[in-house]
Amino acid sequence: MNILKDFLTTELPSINRVLHKELETLNPLVREVGEHVLQAGGKRLRPLLTILMSRCLGRTGDDIYPLACSLEFLHSATLIHDDILDDAHIRRGRQSAHLIFGIKRAVLAGDALLALANMIVARYDVPSMNFCVAEAILKTASGEVEEIDNLRNPEMDEAAYLEIIKGKTAYLIQAACACGAMAAKASPHVLSMASAFGMNLGIAFQLVDDALDFAEDSKLLGKPQGNDIREGKITLPLILFLKTLSETERGQLLQTIARDSLDEEQILDIISSVQKAGLVQQVRQEADVYLKKSLNALMTLPESFERHLMQEMVDLVKTRKF
Amino acid sequence: MNILKDFLTTELPSINRVLHKELETLNPLVREVGEHVLQAGGKRLRPLLTILMSRCLGRTGDDIYPLACSLEFLHSATLIHDDILDDAHIRRGRQSAHLIFGIKRAVLAGDALLALANMIVARYDVPSMNFCVAEAILKTASGEVEEIDNLRNPEMDEAAYLEIIKGKTAYLIQAACACGAMAAKASPHVLSMASAFGMNLGIAFQLVDDALDFAEDSKLLGKPQGNDIREGKITLPLILFLKTLSETERGQLLQTIARDSLDEEQILDIISSVQKAGLVQQVRQEADVYLKKSLNALMTLPESFERHLMQEMVDLVKTRKF
Repeated sequence: MNILKDFLTTELPSINRVLHKELETLNPLVREVGEHVLQAGGKRLRPLLTILMSRCLGRTGDDIYPLACSLEFLHSATLIHDDILDDAHIRRGRQSAHLIFGIKRAVLAGDALLALANMIVARYDVPSMNFCVAEAILKTASGEVEEIDNLRNPEMDEAAYLEIIKGKTAYLIQAACACGAMAAKASPHVLSMASAFGMNLGIAFQLVDDALDFAEDSKLLGKPQGNDIREGKITLPLILFLKTLSETERGQLLQTIARDSLDEEQILDIISSVQKAGLVQQVRQEADVYLKKSLNALMTLPESFERHLMQEMVDLVKTRKF
Repeated sequence: MNILKDFLTTELPSINRVLHKELETLNPLVREVGEHVLQAGGKRLRPLLTILMSRCLGRTGDDIYPLACSLEFLHSATLIHDDILDDAHIRRGRQSAHLIFGIKRAVLAGDALLALANMIVARYDVPSMNFCVAEAILKTASGEVEEIDNLRNPEMDEAAYLEIIKGKTAYLIQAACACGAMAAKASPHVLSMASAFGMNLGIAFQLVDDALDFAEDSKLLGKPQGNDIREGKITLPLILFLKTLSETERGQLLQTIARDSLDEEQILDIISSVQKAGLVQQVRQEADVYLKKSLNALMTLPESFERHLMQEMVDLVKTRKF
């Protein structure tokens, strides 16, 4: 992991510098909201993937940074709008943007960041890249609206869950990889492998995220444990847990969830039962299946320093504890 | 005006058909919100301008419709988000989307429509067009956030007002014309004339809109008279009215506005005073200045049936009563 750490130490300042520089072009009222979200940190996973993929496929030079940053702007825009939707109070350990700046400024700042990202991508003169990021945003919005529609839905199954996490998380990570490949003028086959790498990595990333919300050490996430269940989000650990219950128990619990009348004690009980039944582990194993697919796609790409780093990123998702 | 009317009778069904067809590709939860806003009508001003401009500059064939419709999707997205910001209850005579579908679905439907528009534009393989629409959305969001920031601001002057209406209305109308010109592969000079036509038409359009909010027959607009002043929006009729007052009167009124404590009687009094002082007329005269600029730019473009129709659209804004 030390190579990845060294790489991050070199690259993160460059990414943050370009993020800041592009933000400076915005109206101050909007910029302030963007800076709040971006300064809170985050893993910069998406820009890193764009940079690594483009270099792995042979693009050289520093002009990849704005493209890479546009993916972070898209991600930030979805976070800002998402927090309004969830009425989340904490994001990356800081107060959510809409609580500081108001819903109105937060909605418009999200729109402005989406637009800024599209402008940056358009500067690269590759229309398929514009199509790719626009499609990713459309899928992200669709995934989020499906998630909201399925809050406390007792009918929610694994297939519906998978579609939601593909939408809300995986498509944008796929787009980060695909844009890197397109910037390197990859062939259609190579592009499809880069996309498959990103899509499967993204699914695994969200599966692990959802597992961690039920895990013992999830306090490290900077948000309360059991956040999803409190918000009525039926994620894979809960879906698997419901399967372990008798029909009567399941019916009762589903009714309580549907009515949004779980109390704090019940929530902690469910979390503890999920842990005891080994379901956090099971969801991580499910994530491993996608990580394997991700790795298989990656290994078809040219052997390179960057491919090695992307391989380490796969390992990082696999072993992620917070 | 009969030629314009005939043209609309031919073109509107085609525009509406393509709008509907593109919407069908969306997730049903998002599509429903889009259809609600689009079925409510609207003038389809932006797609009409794209079609007319592209044909005036020599592009033939029906493949201009999706591009034209993408401008309507952008406009609809801003309306949906705008209504959330204003907490408007009525849009185009119907209940606002966020009140029917909820704020969450409305925010995401707006995001999805923005993304859909960007995808459609990307299909045309002209990166400058993607840049143009993204920039227009950025300016629109910036204009709206400036408007919100200046609600009940006693310092608001004509220059600040002009920047706001350029942002919230004119840039998107300019983009509609510029996209039409780019689709026709216009030269940089012709493109700048097409843009100037759109920008000035857009400013005039909003000036007339703001004048009509104070006009006697504004009931025809489908929204209550004095809507802007009730929402705390300081538009040109009010700015001009404040100038007619003595310093003491102005100070008192500004304080009442800043405190958001105007009562209904005071609002109707102000509207009536604005009318009596001939300020509705004066704002329309200001609009005429921009319509003249718009016409001057238009007249540098090739003489054609479409140019003639755009000229009639300028007249329509000039004489618009609702």
